[in-house]
Amino acid sequence: MRREITGFSNPLLKEVRGLREKKLRKRAGLFLAEGLRIMTEAREAGFLPEMLFRVKDREVHALEIALETDVLAAGGDVIETSAEIMAKLSGKDNAQAVVGVYRDHATALNDIDRMAAPIWLVAHAMRDPGNLGTMLRTGDAIGAGGLILIDDCTDPFSVEAVRASMGAVFTQKVVQCRWEEFLHWLRDGAGQLVGTSLQTDTDYQSARYAAPCFILTGNEAQGLPEEYESECDLLVKMPMRGKADSLNAAVAAAVMGYEVLNQFRRA
Amino acid sequence: MRREITGFSNPLLKEVRGLREKKLRKRAGLFLAEGLRIMTEAREAGFLPEMLFRVKDREVHALEIALETDVLAAGGDVIETSAEIMAKLSGKDNAQAVVGVYRDHATALNDIDRMAAPIWLVAHAMRDPGNLGTMLRTGDAIGAGGLILIDDCTDPFSVEAVRASMGAVFTQKVVQCRWEEFLHWLRDGAGQLVGTSLQTDTDYQSARYAAPCFILTGNEAQGLPEEYESECDLLVKMPMRGKADSLNAAVAAAVMGYEVLNQFRRA
Repeated sequence: MRREITGFSNPLLKEVRGLREKKLRKRAGLFLAEGLRIMTEAREAGFLPEMLFRVKDREVHALEIALETDVLAAGGDVIETSAEIMAKLSGKDNAQAVVGVYRDHATALNDIDRMAAPIWLVAHAMRDPGNLGTMLRTGDAIGAGGLILIDDCTDPFSVEAVRASMGAVFTQKVVQCRWEEFLHWLRDGAGQLVGTSLQTDTDYQSARYAAPCFILTGNEAQGLPEEYESECDLLVKMPMRGKADSLNAAVAAAVMGYEVLNQFRRA
Repeated sequence: MRREITGFSNPLLKEVRGLREKKLRKRAGLFLAEGLRIMTEAREAGFLPEMLFRVKDREVHALEIALETDVLAAGGDVIETSAEIMAKLSGKDNAQAVVGVYRDHATALNDIDRMAAPIWLVAHAMRDPGNLGTMLRTGDAIGAGGLILIDDCTDPFSVEAVRASMGAVFTQKVVQCRWEEFLHWLRDGAGQLVGTSLQTDTDYQSARYAAPCFILTGNEAQGLPEEYESECDLLVKMPMRGKADSLNAAVAAAVMGYEVLNQFRRA
């Protein structure tokens, strides 16, 4: 249904603004994605928002019209509002002109078909939403099936993570589980678990990867715990020519991911 | 000299807090680096802070004692203060226990020895301080000589960029210049300029790179302008297996950087 919100005191605004907080996202089972580009990625991946907020009285892109048409046809709401109200909704002055409220779509580990993709990214205790979103974006690029989040990671459905994913939060499977659950599931089928480590002499280019390959990246500050490393089928290291002994976590996952993809491309 | 600040109203605190703003950083020619890890990287690279702020009355790491000793020997100030004042200085509750005030050390293009390293990273109109700092960190890892910032980039000496660099802002040369200056300098000597582009069929792994190799990464939102692409000696593309047509800028630079390093390692 198409409708309009003109007053700042409309209770729906408070509810939607609340989706910036993890607790309220979990309670509602909803999350926010901002901007036509990400929302179009979502639409092309088969995800439509339950509510689409849009600033009225401005030039409209054809993709936005297509999006609105689909939302209305699916029984969703298109809510017209002012730029001022949208800024309040977004908590920033230069807010996007369209914002969508989507149903949370995390996948259970047991619903993953590991053979559906040659590469899966796995992140342990990832703290930074930008890194998490960037890993999703990289996963999309390398043809990964999804991102498996181990133990206490930052929320993949936060506004920052969704933004950094550039829409990949809709095209990649997102799983959240504990390490023990993951290991149990992993060992119940095919799969090579690869970790990056300082405790090995195996160059990441001399190792041989096998699909489905699970690339495990550790927490930003601590890297992988030793007991997690010891469960890996393969530990590899990337050359580090400088003073530092580690890469940014999202960069490390990408460098590993492209190496695995490149080996699979040659095979 | 070692001294102590006990009052919130000390004018030095206001000055140092002001270094979080670009305008005041430029005016003072100073910038902030927070935390013992980054400050130790700086020290090992030969950079000492002019002022070192530290929270007093707590357990002290040997590296901090070494740092203080060096600062005092070099004629710098070690300023003891309380956790509350440090929190105010940092603008956050969980502030680092040590903060350094460093002299700005950008390098002029003409002072760069391009033959000193096989790889140089070049970024055009980079907007995100996290991406910029991450590129510095990656540059350190791949043995790059430095990061050349073209046109209007975010400030490499912001607290966020310094933090993301994990100290590489001290080990990598940092240059800021306009595109025309860069091109003029580049063409005055050896150097292969490589850009990533959607307008090419050349796979980044089939291209052959030559040192000194300048890896050019475009702005986060727009990528490289066409006229910049046309100046490149080589345009390459990375495989994109998913829905998206680009990688995060810092990720793209890292994937390219490791490919170039890997080719040079094999040669």
